[in-house]
Amino acid sequence: MINNPTEEVNRVLQQAHVAFLSYKNFSGKQKAAFLRAIADEIEALGAELVSTAMRETNLPEARIINERGRTTGHCRMFADLVEEGSWVEARVDTALPNRIPAPKPDMRKMLVPIGPVVVFGAANFPLAYSTAGGDTASALAAGCPVIVKAHPAHLETSKLVAAAIEKAAAKTGMPQGVFQHVHGEGFEIGQALVKHPFTKAVGFTGSLVGGKALFDLANQRPEPIPVFAEMSSINPVILLPETLSRDAAKTASQLAGSITLGVGQFCTNPGLIIAIDDAALASFIATLVTEIEKSLPGTMLHQGIADNYAKRLTQTLAQKGVKAEGQSANGNAAQGTPLVASVAAETFLQNPTLSEEVFGPFSLIVKCKDTNELHQVITKSHGQLTATIIGDEAEISKHKVLINMLIEKAGRLIINGVPTGVEVCPAQMHGGPYPATTDSRFTAVGTDAIKRFVRPVTFQNFPESLLPTELKTENPLGIWRLFNNEQKK
Amino acid sequence: MINNPTEEVNRVLQQAHVAFLSYKNFSGKQKAAFLRAIADEIEALGAELVSTAMRETNLPEARIINERGRTTGHCRMFADLVEEGSWVEARVDTALPNRIPAPKPDMRKMLVPIGPVVVFGAANFPLAYSTAGGDTASALAAGCPVIVKAHPAHLETSKLVAAAIEKAAAKTGMPQGVFQHVHGEGFEIGQALVKHPFTKAVGFTGSLVGGKALFDLANQRPEPIPVFAEMSSINPVILLPETLSRDAAKTASQLAGSITLGVGQFCTNPGLIIAIDDAALASFIATLVTEIEKSLPGTMLHQGIADNYAKRLTQTLAQKGVKAEGQSANGNAAQGTPLVASVAAETFLQNPTLSEEVFGPFSLIVKCKDTNELHQVITKSHGQLTATIIGDEAEISKHKVLINMLIEKAGRLIINGVPTGVEVCPAQMHGGPYPATTDSRFTAVGTDAIKRFVRPVTFQNFPESLLPTELKTENPLGIWRLFNNEQKK
Repeated sequence: MINNPTEEVNRVLQQAHVAFLSYKNFSGKQKAAFLRAIADEIEALGAELVSTAMRETNLPEARIINERGRTTGHCRMFADLVEEGSWVEARVDTALPNRIPAPKPDMRKMLVPIGPVVVFGAANFPLAYSTAGGDTASALAAGCPVIVKAHPAHLETSKLVAAAIEKAAAKTGMPQGVFQHVHGEGFEIGQALVKHPFTKAVGFTGSLVGGKALFDLANQRPEPIPVFAEMSSINPVILLPETLSRDAAKTASQLAGSITLGVGQFCTNPGLIIAIDDAALASFIATLVTEIEKSLPGTMLHQGIADNYAKRLTQTLAQKGVKAEGQSANGNAAQGTPLVASVAAETFLQNPTLSEEVFGPFSLIVKCKDTNELHQVITKSHGQLTATIIGDEAEISKHKVLINMLIEKAGRLIINGVPTGVEVCPAQMHGGPYPATTDSRFTAVGTDAIKRFVRPVTFQNFPESLLPTELKTENPLGIWRLFNNEQKK
Repeated sequence: MINNPTEEVNRVLQQAHVAFLSYKNFSGKQKAAFLRAIADEIEALGAELVSTAMRETNLPEARIINERGRTTGHCRMFADLVEEGSWVEARVDTALPNRIPAPKPDMRKMLVPIGPVVVFGAANFPLAYSTAGGDTASALAAGCPVIVKAHPAHLETSKLVAAAIEKAAAKTGMPQGVFQHVHGEGFEIGQALVKHPFTKAVGFTGSLVGGKALFDLANQRPEPIPVFAEMSSINPVILLPETLSRDAAKTASQLAGSITLGVGQFCTNPGLIIAIDDAALASFIATLVTEIEKSLPGTMLHQGIADNYAKRLTQTLAQKGVKAEGQSANGNAAQGTPLVASVAAETFLQNPTLSEEVFGPFSLIVKCKDTNELHQVITKSHGQLTATIIGDEAEISKHKVLINMLIEKAGRLIINGVPTGVEVCPAQMHGGPYPATTDSRFTAVGTDAIKRFVRPVTFQNFPESLLPTELKTENPLGIWRLFNNEQKK
């Protein structure tokens, strides 16, 4: 019965479950040592990791090195977070035994890990959103064992990183099964992982179809579990007319850079540009076209992504009213050709196909007759990871309603910047209303990503000796707590 | 087209949506005034509210008065919370324009309301978990308009409270549609409310079948939305043998009180008692039987609940190996008869029916051969709202593994208390793994209940004048924030 996915998955989850029963009680210091060792071991892989990832993903060396830095960076960030310890949101409400009409019991609450987490890594981030990516690091930090289903497009890279994590686990005395690496073709193993009763949460980065399928599967389990799927976003950029009339060329250059960055293979790629159809927009388009024409086609992550980009591009350009404005020279079949197109807002509003993601170096300019039409385009927009407004302070002040509208559509609002480039920090919200993600209440990037893999538990009337360290009255860890409704250390 | 549920629901959600666009920007002070006015207007209803609720629910006056206090109490608690303002979890990461290799943008994040919330109130809490219940109060506090689908079992009570909320809204200048009251027979209206695209979250308290149906409906929408359904819990109580050998009678009296409280119509009713089968347990059962036999049958909330209790009781007692230990005198058809039964753990483990909730004054004692079997009973247990251990500190210290196991099964662990009586405070976790609720990550009671109806949004590179007040550098509201990774005011 070797190679039976059900048996293999059963064995893996059994081990994860056993690991959980001890790992969940590991201290912040212990988990921090593990996370830092992961970062060290990834660095110790040296040039082999870089060359393997380059070969498997067609991404350039500088990008892989940068991404490696980001990966080790978030491992160390979560190490610091759990070592410090305040992230558990401890609340202590001491007893009032003489309260009338009924005594108040001693109540204390903190976040605890949810259980084994299954992670499906992203094709477009072979390091930072894959085997030791943000999902893995945040789940391990929370106290959850992790099972990574390797992305077949960068299997060797994934194996190298998995070995580094396993080495780190052994060196720092983590329980066997705290991290497991599973690979195999087809959907069967992934589905079995999500359906297994010991799996308690799922992290996924990929397509809308794939993410939605896992979400449905997880909700149909006898015990439904949360799925954090990051799926689809076209990241609208709104150009305000007065500002654009002054800055058309600069704005166009900046956006061209964002559209073509990494052959457009970012979840935050600006796929939609919305503006009033006036002379400033014409000038903006002229510069954007020049920039795009100067840009080069780039080899995409894998042939499937290149094929899909070509297909979606053809499909989009075949829609009524869509005009190709400019493109780079055509590349070979493995490459993605940067291209910008335009469409009248009236046409855009009637054609839902044009609101769907084209994953690659493409952006669609939506030309609006007036502000009303621009508002309609925003109102009809799906949920997004980001929304950007290009405009100076004075002009945006006159259009505050835009901020009010965009808050409902995206997890991150940007003024005078580009959506690509996702800062890893406490104030980051990388997530957004459906279909950007399946759960707009959680971020996949930054320290708060840990909150996806925890649940609160209250300890009522516990003697001091039986309380978790975080909740003992004398606060031995020195963490921030809400103590009788007062925030203090 | 009058009385067309789809049209009615469409009109209601349209109004809620419009209300949301302004209400979401109301300050904490404004929302606090509204919530306090709700409490005042409920109190102003005086004796009429009490007598109406008594008549519709068969609950005694003292209980209704107590529940009214709890309802106005949580309205004022959420008023204090949003007026103080720190609940938005503000994070400010200021820019590092000279950072190498790339500048760090200014990033600021806070929680914002999710949108209109549909609330289905509980039959068993005509005030505290109904029209102005915890779901309504926390959603309004978050900045979300609320649509309450009135519970048909206490429609007149619901109408009185709805009128009080509407009066409070008018007095404090809230937008029209900030609160709406919908009623009607059958499932059609409820389903239409959950399916409407402007609905962004659902609160529900009731049966497993009802909650699961809404959960599925919400997940099958083109845009899935969160459902916070509190559904089913049998709240296991574990009696440790050494302690029981000393305190059998006292423990039995205490549990008898909890089992029969409010005719057992609490989500936290102790429906399962687990213990080692020894002389102490026999003595415990003897006292429990005496207490239960002395207790009186009580009129249940409505005939449907009484019928269901009678049916489930008959069904449970008909299971192989289940022995009725004692019951009160039989009441009439509208009443629930307190009853305790016992079963061997071996039998219990083989019969899933015995793990299902019997809503009413019933508890099943599971007799275990030894500690191993007791552990098996816990391991096989479903998710619960609460789990209780009765044992002294020294004995529990020898059974710490129990705490480790129970954390995975329940949202609240209690030592030497009863699960009934749910304190409204910051450290409360009223929720638990499925099927206790559909989302173990959130509480339905206490200040953190507000977190069900919000999502984080990041503001990147915003000029000060365009930032929400909570995120302005000078902190005009004086709230706690994580400012460059440091917790401060």
